[in-house]
Amino acid sequence: MSDAINIGMFGMGNVGKGVVQLLAKNKSVIEKRVGKPVEIKKAVVSDLKKDRGVDVSGILMSTDPDHILNDPDIDIVLELVGGLDVAETIILRALENGKSVVTANKALLAERGRTIFRAAHDAGGCFGFETSVGAAIPIVRTLRLGFAGDDIVKISGIMNGTSNYILSKMSQDKSGFSETLEKAQEAGLAEADPTLDIQGIDAAHKLIVLMNIAFNGVFDFSQLHTEGITNITAADIDYTGQLGYTIKHIGKVRKTEQGIEARVHPALVPRDHIMSSVNGAFNSISVFGEFMGPANLHGLGAGPGPSAVGVAGDVIEAARYILTGQQRPVSPFSIPLEEWRPIDMVPMGRIRSEFYLRFNVLDHLGVLSSISKVLAENRISVRSVIQKGVPSETEAPVDIVIITHEAMEADVQAALGQINQEPFMAGRTQLIRIEPD
Amino acid sequence: MSDAINIGMFGMGNVGKGVVQLLAKNKSVIEKRVGKPVEIKKAVVSDLKKDRGVDVSGILMSTDPDHILNDPDIDIVLELVGGLDVAETIILRALENGKSVVTANKALLAERGRTIFRAAHDAGGCFGFETSVGAAIPIVRTLRLGFAGDDIVKISGIMNGTSNYILSKMSQDKSGFSETLEKAQEAGLAEADPTLDIQGIDAAHKLIVLMNIAFNGVFDFSQLHTEGITNITAADIDYTGQLGYTIKHIGKVRKTEQGIEARVHPALVPRDHIMSSVNGAFNSISVFGEFMGPANLHGLGAGPGPSAVGVAGDVIEAARYILTGQQRPVSPFSIPLEEWRPIDMVPMGRIRSEFYLRFNVLDHLGVLSSISKVLAENRISVRSVIQKGVPSETEAPVDIVIITHEAMEADVQAALGQINQEPFMAGRTQLIRIEPD
Repeated sequence: MSDAINIGMFGMGNVGKGVVQLLAKNKSVIEKRVGKPVEIKKAVVSDLKKDRGVDVSGILMSTDPDHILNDPDIDIVLELVGGLDVAETIILRALENGKSVVTANKALLAERGRTIFRAAHDAGGCFGFETSVGAAIPIVRTLRLGFAGDDIVKISGIMNGTSNYILSKMSQDKSGFSETLEKAQEAGLAEADPTLDIQGIDAAHKLIVLMNIAFNGVFDFSQLHTEGITNITAADIDYTGQLGYTIKHIGKVRKTEQGIEARVHPALVPRDHIMSSVNGAFNSISVFGEFMGPANLHGLGAGPGPSAVGVAGDVIEAARYILTGQQRPVSPFSIPLEEWRPIDMVPMGRIRSEFYLRFNVLDHLGVLSSISKVLAENRISVRSVIQKGVPSETEAPVDIVIITHEAMEADVQAALGQINQEPFMAGRTQLIRIEPD
Repeated sequence: MSDAINIGMFGMGNVGKGVVQLLAKNKSVIEKRVGKPVEIKKAVVSDLKKDRGVDVSGILMSTDPDHILNDPDIDIVLELVGGLDVAETIILRALENGKSVVTANKALLAERGRTIFRAAHDAGGCFGFETSVGAAIPIVRTLRLGFAGDDIVKISGIMNGTSNYILSKMSQDKSGFSETLEKAQEAGLAEADPTLDIQGIDAAHKLIVLMNIAFNGVFDFSQLHTEGITNITAADIDYTGQLGYTIKHIGKVRKTEQGIEARVHPALVPRDHIMSSVNGAFNSISVFGEFMGPANLHGLGAGPGPSAVGVAGDVIEAARYILTGQQRPVSPFSIPLEEWRPIDMVPMGRIRSEFYLRFNVLDHLGVLSSISKVLAENRISVRSVIQKGVPSETEAPVDIVIITHEAMEADVQAALGQINQEPFMAGRTQLIRIEPD
């Protein structure tokens, strides 16, 4: 065995650079914790000439994957390229070649989990994916190990730092979505292509990874109802603030009598709720277990530093197994392969919530009564209304905001389908679900 | 190998009963996660006739430790008797006999950690102690694994639910310590003998366990400055509230240029601080790492349910190792034995803090000036003062409250030593440190 644990790293973007810096700066503390030095021996990148902005002088760089995958001295492969096809090939080949693998790739695990987890299960090495959800926030390991004795009833939280940053900023500056996104991009807090973040897809990937572990099955990403924050307006922030709520982008899964109810969308959160005070780029994940009650894990969910800590934790765990000549005793999926079955989610239409509905209407007499009538016909009961009159001589549309009692999603969608076609409607109705607890 | 993972349980108090209930109720989910049933085969208790209030019909009960320790079918021993001598003997003998051990005994680990951790290191089986700090809050595993790649700079938090409950209640009801303690005892939220909790010793035990892991060494419990909440008065709650602070009982350790600074005591926490909103029996532990920045773990730190989840997590981890015929690759201490050295703490006198000082004085002219002079002579600079006059005809003592800038502990103690002997003093000066960040 070599004098060090040798890492081969695929990709050297922000997370990769963070890992390079961390392993250099914390070299001695990590050697102390592992019992041997942990070193990045090789890296595979797409552009060898690019200035990485970190000291890569001890790392053999190449553009050829075999440079790492066929090197018997490489103990641990880090997959930090992201995306689906290339990353999948790297991971599958690394596992086949008997290497331990550490990845932060939530998209791959959520969309192709069956293939990846099965390969990891069959292979001998460790498979670490703590960083795929919430960077260094230890939620993956906690669900696989610490909370494994409890029956998990609910997981909810703020799982995308970019969306949370934008919503926090909109709330603070009373600004609209597009201008806030632009500012976040200028400040380096949103990517040039922010689609995965602002459309809710990144949070949805993370929720699927957590659901797979917590509920002992395989969930189909395409079944997960996913909405982003692009439709949230300054007006919504204003009205919901008046009603005592903060708008947060959440992922939530609950075990109910109907089955597993999961969704990712913006939500109104009461101002004294633990999620309401999570600002900026922080993530916050709450877990409710039957015996343990509520627990919450909170920290920076992205960025080179926190992501590097997540990766390094998995690397150290793998290194300890390698040094003792052992294989990991816990399936990466947390349950034995034979228990590993697809689980269907409850269809979104059957989930009950309270709703914030903002109707943009031409200020005609009787509009509120017409809306209320359609809602009542669809078994939706109104809890409160904000209607602000405007001088009758103007033709400008006005907002009617309605907070409902708990109602079934399908009923609300049916009612809105009807109401949106009424001649008094000036725009599409805004719907945001309320997270009551 | 037997058809089940067999547990032998020592002690059946609140935590033990919680474990019995959890393993019965969550039997199928645990079997799914482990791959085999996990069953309590035997228990050793001091009184066989006592009604346990839980279904123990499947458990063979005895008063003889050998009933469990000499049974080759017992895979995992749970030490839930607490205390030092008896628990130590059980754990050492169980380890010698090749069993995995799970304990929630923070006192034993903090006060006799060298013996216990060395024995666990030398033995083959798993040694789980997650429940020793914060019940199901996954802080032990997180420091051993998840955050192992970062250089931990600070750990601070609310580590004793009883103290936190009493302080929360005093603050809410404007009540004094003794009457609040009595009410907590009546409500079953403080023990009949609450010494370990209210004197800060329980929190100190927990902090030592965390320090050992985070800072890669062995700390001497007797070096840890430990204060409880017994001296906190309704007046202190009132004054600190006026100043924008909440009083919390905290454990804190920081890595500074001087070395490792650790202490356990009540502290003034700004009202917007994350710890300030931790109420009732909750625990909250914050960790700051150089690369990951701040993270926080929050949950119920005691009680049969949360403690049972902590124990069950360790049991499941041990069961997975046993089923794969493997030994644990991570030293229970998180570092290899040869790195395992005593580390001295910085003496309390050399730690710098801001201070809340409440002087109870006879309302003589010039008292504030005398106090200020002694403070200045001891290099203590005053940030703010609350002095409330009383009608001069009364002889009742009055409070002068002073908030200092950062000062050295030894200087403050020297100044108070002088001031407490002044003839104008009506009682001993109250000192509470301020937790600024």
